[in-house]
Amino acid sequence: MRKYRLLSPGPTPVPEKALLRMADTIIHHRTPQFQAVLKGVFEKLKKLFLTKNPVLVFASSGTGAMEASVVSFLSKGDKAIVIKGGKFGERFAEICEAYGVEVIPYDVTWGEPADPKAVEKLLKDNPGVKAVYSTLCETSTGVVNDIKAIAGIIKKTDAILVVDAVSGLSADEMKPDEWGVDVVVSGSQKGIMLPPGLAFMSVSKKAEKMAETSDLPSYYFGLKAALKAYAKNDTAWTPGVSLIMGLDTVLDMILQEGLDNVLSRHARLANATREAVKALGLEIFAKRPSNAVTSVKVPDGVDGSALVKKMRDEQGVTIAGGQGSLKGKIFRIAHLGYMDEYDTIAAIAGIEIVLKQLGYKVELGKGVGKAQELLS
Amino acid sequence: MRKYRLLSPGPTPVPEKALLRMADTIIHHRTPQFQAVLKGVFEKLKKLFLTKNPVLVFASSGTGAMEASVVSFLSKGDKAIVIKGGKFGERFAEICEAYGVEVIPYDVTWGEPADPKAVEKLLKDNPGVKAVYSTLCETSTGVVNDIKAIAGIIKKTDAILVVDAVSGLSADEMKPDEWGVDVVVSGSQKGIMLPPGLAFMSVSKKAEKMAETSDLPSYYFGLKAALKAYAKNDTAWTPGVSLIMGLDTVLDMILQEGLDNVLSRHARLANATREAVKALGLEIFAKRPSNAVTSVKVPDGVDGSALVKKMRDEQGVTIAGGQGSLKGKIFRIAHLGYMDEYDTIAAIAGIEIVLKQLGYKVELGKGVGKAQELLS
Repeated sequence: MRKYRLLSPGPTPVPEKALLRMADTIIHHRTPQFQAVLKGVFEKLKKLFLTKNPVLVFASSGTGAMEASVVSFLSKGDKAIVIKGGKFGERFAEICEAYGVEVIPYDVTWGEPADPKAVEKLLKDNPGVKAVYSTLCETSTGVVNDIKAIAGIIKKTDAILVVDAVSGLSADEMKPDEWGVDVVVSGSQKGIMLPPGLAFMSVSKKAEKMAETSDLPSYYFGLKAALKAYAKNDTAWTPGVSLIMGLDTVLDMILQEGLDNVLSRHARLANATREAVKALGLEIFAKRPSNAVTSVKVPDGVDGSALVKKMRDEQGVTIAGGQGSLKGKIFRIAHLGYMDEYDTIAAIAGIEIVLKQLGYKVELGKGVGKAQELLS
Repeated sequence: MRKYRLLSPGPTPVPEKALLRMADTIIHHRTPQFQAVLKGVFEKLKKLFLTKNPVLVFASSGTGAMEASVVSFLSKGDKAIVIKGGKFGERFAEICEAYGVEVIPYDVTWGEPADPKAVEKLLKDNPGVKAVYSTLCETSTGVVNDIKAIAGIIKKTDAILVVDAVSGLSADEMKPDEWGVDVVVSGSQKGIMLPPGLAFMSVSKKAEKMAETSDLPSYYFGLKAALKAYAKNDTAWTPGVSLIMGLDTVLDMILQEGLDNVLSRHARLANATREAVKALGLEIFAKRPSNAVTSVKVPDGVDGSALVKKMRDEQGVTIAGGQGSLKGKIFRIAHLGYMDEYDTIAAIAGIEIVLKQLGYKVELGKGVGKAQELLS
């Protein structure tokens, strides 16, 4: 017997309640029955996103909504500042470039957060910038950006701020309406606790206004069709019916726990993980660590890829390694969605065992004890 | 108690076996475990599509793959013949136009099939056409087009043939490699018996060649990234993990029944339905009827919308009404995927009851008897 423990930053474990809801008889989507569900889902999504703006639902993974956040608002030749600093910041740049948007890159060193002052300077140096793209949590490095400060700068300009909160939503604090974030993009397989297959995009009035003059081509991710359908509690194309049923269930779970409580649970698990690995002599990679995922430097002399592989294949605990240039150099433990104190303790216990096997000097239970202390 | 009977042309009922497979513990997608599943799925999809070409899997609904079939191959200003004649033919034209492709429309009267000779003439009259877009089954009218004849014409030219087999796949015969169909597009929620959320696109060598010079912008539906990932038993972006698990199960079911048997089951149910409604004095709308869905003219004096609504709300049998200009004028009964003889009999029995309630002269059991005769 080998229990499967999923502590990766997406997909994340799906609550049994949601699995069973999705396994119920499938119903037709163009019916009052389904539209009643969709209407409720739309209302609950606003509460989760902390916004009064519409939150559109696409049948796609998160990258689809990232594409929607480019093609919906910009025009060919427009200038956009893209805060890189990880795989997902870079993805925004790739999408912009694919559609002929001029990217003004802000190359943040991987592991560091964006400096709001640098964003301010880029805006001053490049008049006419239409949009700024940033991640909330940059999943590949475990950094959470200071979106509040960045939004404070951008909201005084004509540019819109687009935030990839695919992994950050419900883990790291974000208040789009209060702070002035125009577009928030997310996905189903992270804090929302569902399988991948749904993507989300909230749209402010300022962004909707900009969309009116956008000339980038689009169809499946087209904003006009999506907003028109949304107004009728519908979707432009066939929705992911069963995933939306599951969404109805998990949104109820999140709102019943209370978004504040969900956020503090993520903060508590992330803090315990950080302190536990520090107690083992390890170093946190992210300079401004997210509560969605903790990135840890692989200590000298330890094979980072072997660590992740042994965790998965021998301990049954799936964590993530580093991506791109960070391959083998960091490992990442998520605190995302349907994860609790004992999942976190299991992950730390597994890390201790595997580090020891790989020749790193570990006093078994030292990290676990630290986590217990902080979690109890 | 009201049992829910789904006889719409998508979504279609999902076998319990697949529901349970999708309700199993979710696993991470960048693992040897998942890639082994994906590898098997890719092989089985080729058997279902009757092609040796790669069949790409997108996390989206069918419209997403339709978009992929435009942006992957064409360039701005290219000419494409689009066989309209229903809502989905028109969708191809809309996508082409959204991306600046010049559409040469072939406006087939709704309910009639495309005339291969007319396609031939359009090709002659418009030198340099790059692609021809057609539906196999045009779901909105219930017509199946003669793709074999159309492919026979196009394969002699430099143009590629793209076929929307979203609803037609596994219901209406199609042999892409034998006939010369370059690109076949489909979705998960029809004959494949899954919830919506996966879309498919097969790509011939001729189409891949054309893709090399395509300049339409794309990212999420980009062919290059999809093919590169496919070669490594992977997907470019996060796949719909649980739907792909379900796909593995339903593909086994289809291949175990045997594709030929699946096709003849659809043919048998469709034929019985056509003859049953004719026995009630009704008329088939489609001049060349598909085996995926039977479209029936609403008889004079009967309210077509009320018929569909009463079937759903009072009889628990979900069929489809007409779309667009056909609203209220036809109703559509599917024979698609996980549907059998007694589902068909239930649908016909319900139609008889509701027609009688709506004032149409019906001898109860007359249509059902005809179906029994043909199905037993």
